[in-house]
Formats: sequence, structure tokens, C-alpha cells
Amino acid sequence: MSGPAGPASGSAPGLGILAGGTGMPLAVAASATAKGWRVHMIGVRGEAIPEIERYSHTWVSLGEIGKVLAALKQHDCSELVIIGSVTRPDFRSLRFDLGAVRNLPLLLKVMVGGDDHVLGGLVKFFEAKGLVVRGAHEVAPELVATLGSLGRVSPTADAASDIAHGSKVVKALGALDIGQAAVVVRGHVLAVEAAEGTDAMLARTRDLRRWGEKSGQKRLGVLVKLPKPGQELRVDMPTIGPRTVEGAAAAGLAGIAIAAGHVLIAERSAVIAAADAHGLFVAGIDAAG
Amino acid sequence: MSGPAGPASGSAPGLGILAGGTGMPLAVAASATAKGWRVHMIGVRGEAIPEIERYSHTWVSLGEIGKVLAALKQHDCSELVIIGSVTRPDFRSLRFDLGAVRNLPLLLKVMVGGDDHVLGGLVKFFEAKGLVVRGAHEVAPELVATLGSLGRVSPTADAASDIAHGSKVVKALGALDIGQAAVVVRGHVLAVEAAEGTDAMLARTRDLRRWGEKSGQKRLGVLVKLPKPGQELRVDMPTIGPRTVEGAAAAGLAGIAIAAGHVLIAERSAVIAAADAHGLFVAGIDAAG
Repeated sequence: MSGPAGPASGSAPGLGILAGGTGMPLAVAASATAKGWRVHMIGVRGEAIPEIERYSHTWVSLGEIGKVLAALKQHDCSELVIIGSVTRPDFRSLRFDLGAVRNLPLLLKVMVGGDDHVLGGLVKFFEAKGLVVRGAHEVAPELVATLGSLGRVSPTADAASDIAHGSKVVKALGALDIGQAAVVVRGHVLAVEAAEGTDAMLARTRDLRRWGEKSGQKRLGVLVKLPKPGQELRVDMPTIGPRTVEGAAAAGLAGIAIAAGHVLIAERSAVIAAADAHGLFVAGIDAAG
Repeated sequence: MSGPAGPASGSAPGLGILAGGTGMPLAVAASATAKGWRVHMIGVRGEAIPEIERYSHTWVSLGEIGKVLAALKQHDCSELVIIGSVTRPDFRSLRFDLGAVRNLPLLLKVMVGGDDHVLGGLVKFFEAKGLVVRGAHEVAPELVATLGSLGRVSPTADAASDIAHGSKVVKALGALDIGQAAVVVRGHVLAVEAAEGTDAMLARTRDLRRWGEKSGQKRLGVLVKLPKPGQELRVDMPTIGPRTVEGAAAAGLAGIAIAAGHVLIAERSAVIAAADAHGLFVAGIDAAG
């Protein structure tokens, strides 16, 4: 990866942020502002949190692509970051990311008969309009996982063994274009993520393990999350956040392993606090090769 | 596979059937009786259906292994089939098979800290006691899937393409010891089964697809179910039944593909009726190689 993207010196260039849910768009905005960007938020109605109004902003509804373009033009933004999640509140547990989770194109294609590469298509669309589409990790590299443990807890030897097996499994899944995460407990693959997303996979793991629940049972097993080979990291970088930590804790896992340099961490301080509170590790691993 | 197992001529040998839930133990008993076996049912209390009392029978609770041995001895059974499912009714959607689904050893190990190969261990235990443990498919080969479609509907070219991709995926999962089933829709892997079982995977697929539901939308995609390499087919053969067909129908799938010769079909006539009623195919495929 080359150095972080930043505004050309001497100018106050406009960076548009097409914002879905979670605090991630705010984190990107704060980081970009600190680097000298002039930020304009374009919040997806019903998805982006109200706090985006701290910045110059425009609200759009899902699909109002023309309004997005008009706002970018009006606010003189030549670059764009697409980040955050999109939920369908009428359908329980279904949540997919506009900018960070890979399920949107799949779900659209499978369920609505849309294009297979909606996010890739969105990028191409904006690029064809003369915009530069940046990944959140380019604008705000401090949001990306680094090597090592985030909080107080580090993986034990047992967890390291589950991490190694999980990495092998997730890489194999990725090579088959299946998914980017799995739960491994004592060498066993308990759950594999395909289109349902990481939160749903963790909820399933929790239900499976509740069966054998004992009070005082120690945490066992890991969630491993890595990008797929060739994944479009500009709009589709794997992400974890406090909810991932809560889900892993509820599932009785010992921790979370993510690919250093290739996974975004939303609300890092909340992630660390949750991990420390539950006694979980959150570790960036070298997932190359 | 050699010819079906049967009683030695001239004798009326005893066949014990350790019976969990579903109608499968009854189907095996009927088949064995027709072949000249004298059957003694050993029903797992709260799991086996009351109809097993049509046969000579003993009820046991889970774990009463001594009572199982005593019943086999008392009723002069030198051979044993272990078949049927075990549910934990207090935990929603968790259902695993005593004789037919692979999740028991995994769940026991992961959740209760038990042995990794409970079913294999159970087989070895009974063998050490001098019993011959038979697979249901040996005693009742007519319960095993054969090549071709079971009901009126056959796979379309689109479905055949999803079956081919699904077979590749499930084989890869099997090689990694992950699971034995996946749902593929238009070339996309929508769901992958690990420890949760096929029914739970189908329910998840249904929820995912409901998001994009349209009235009159045609059935798309397939469930592919194959044994893992080296799976102990005597006590752990993959199984489908009417509930699998209902789950696949609810998930909007076009059909179910299973490995001919390596998957048991519970209540075949009900499977065919359900498949025909929903317009689904249930096809045995050549999954070798």
C-alpha cells in the first residue's frame, strides 16, 4: 500500500462521504478533516446516524444517485468515499454494508435479480462521472487493523491454533468466492459465513453453544475474518466493530482474529473497551500467503 | 458396496435398532423384518416415535448405555443399527442425528467437552462388546438415494449448473472437514452448513431471500448434500426427508441434489409428494470423483 491519500497541498479539496449506518462515516470524516480535507457528508436516509449533520451534509434516499451527484458537484467534491451499512429494518437480522460488507451485490443479484457487481458498478459509475473513489482505508489508514492485539488480552496457544486453522478455512472459502469469515472452536469449524453476514453467523454460534452451556465455562474458539482474494477493498473492506465483539462474546469465543492491513475497525476505542470487558482478544494477524 | 446385509439363512437372528427420532428407525425395521430379521427396537425416550412399540421394544434414556447392552443381550441381538435424530427441545432449531447426521460428536466435543468421535466411539464400544454394527444403508439399501429424479420434476440446465458448482463447493468443504451441504443460487454460494445442520441452513436461506421476495418469483437455486470423505456412513450417513423438502421449498429453491448411494432418504413417498406439490426436484447425482 502506498502512503495515505490526502488533499493536494494549498487547496481545500472536497471529499464526499456517501454515508450508511454505523459510526464509521463519522470516523472517516474526522480523520479526513484532520488531514485538511473539506468534507461533505451524503447521508443515506434511515441509515446514516444524525451526527453526520456535524458536517456539511445532504440527505438522500437509497437509489437517489442523481441527488448524490448533484450534492458532490454543488459542494465541489472531486473525491468520494463510500462507507457504512445499510439495513432493512423490516427483515430481522439482515444487515449489509454499503461500503464495507460484501453481501450487497450478492443479495441484490440473488433476490432482486440485480447486477452481480453493484458496488463495483457504483464505483465505475462515479469514476465515469470524473470522480476519484477512495477506500476509507486510504483516507483514514488509522482505521485499519494492524498486527498484534488491540486490548489487554492476547491469544493463547490454543487460540493461536484455532486462528491458524480458521485462516486456512477462510482462505479456502475466499478462493471459492464463498465468504470471508468462520468460527473455529478447538480445531472444529462451527460456522461459516456466506451471504448472511458475520453478526448472523455469530448469533448462530451462540445458539449452538448455548446447548452445552455451563456456568463458568471458559471462552473457547475464534472468529477469523479476512478479505477474499480480489475483493474490492475500496468499497468492500471487511469490517468489525463493537457489535462484532459483543457477538463473539455472546458466542463464548476467546477472541477475534482479523487480517492486518485489510480489515477496518469501527469505533476502535469501543472495540477495545468491549474486548477488555469480556476478556476477549482482538488480534491483527499476518494473513498474507 | 457389496450386497445388502441380511440374516444368515435358517436362523431368526436378532437385529437391535437403537432408535432416535423421525420415521427412519421404523423404515429400517420394516425393511429388516421383510428380509427375515427379528427386530428389537431400543427407543431413546423423548426422541423415538411411539410407533416403534409396534415391534418388540425397550425404552432407554440418553446415556443409558448399559440398558442398551442388556436389552440387546436379553433379546439375543448380535447386530445393531443406530439410526434417527436426537433433539434438545429446550433449544430452538437445534436438532442433531444420533445415527444419521454428523453434528453430534462435534457438538459434544465443542460444547460439553466430550470426545471428538462419540459416534465412532459408540461403534467401537458396541463392537468391543461383540456386536456387529450395521449401517441402515446395509440393512435397508432401498432407503438410499439412487441416480436420477425422485418425483415429477427434473433439474433444468440452470439448476444443473448450480448443482455442479455446489458439488465442487461441498467437496471442498468436506475436504476441510467443515460440512456436507451448501445452498447455491445462480452460481452464488448463499449458505454453507457447518455445525448447525441442514434445516437451520435452509431456514437462514429462507430469511435471506425473503428480503427480495416477489410474488410469482420462480424457484431458483439448489441444496447440495454429499457425505464428507471418510465419513462413517454406518452411523453418520447424510439424510434428507420431507422436512428437508419443505425447508428447500420455503427457501425458494428449485431443488435438492444428493449423492446417489451415499445419502439416506427418510419417508421416501412423503419426500416425493412434497417435492411434486412444491414443484421441486430431488435428484440423486453421481458425486464420485
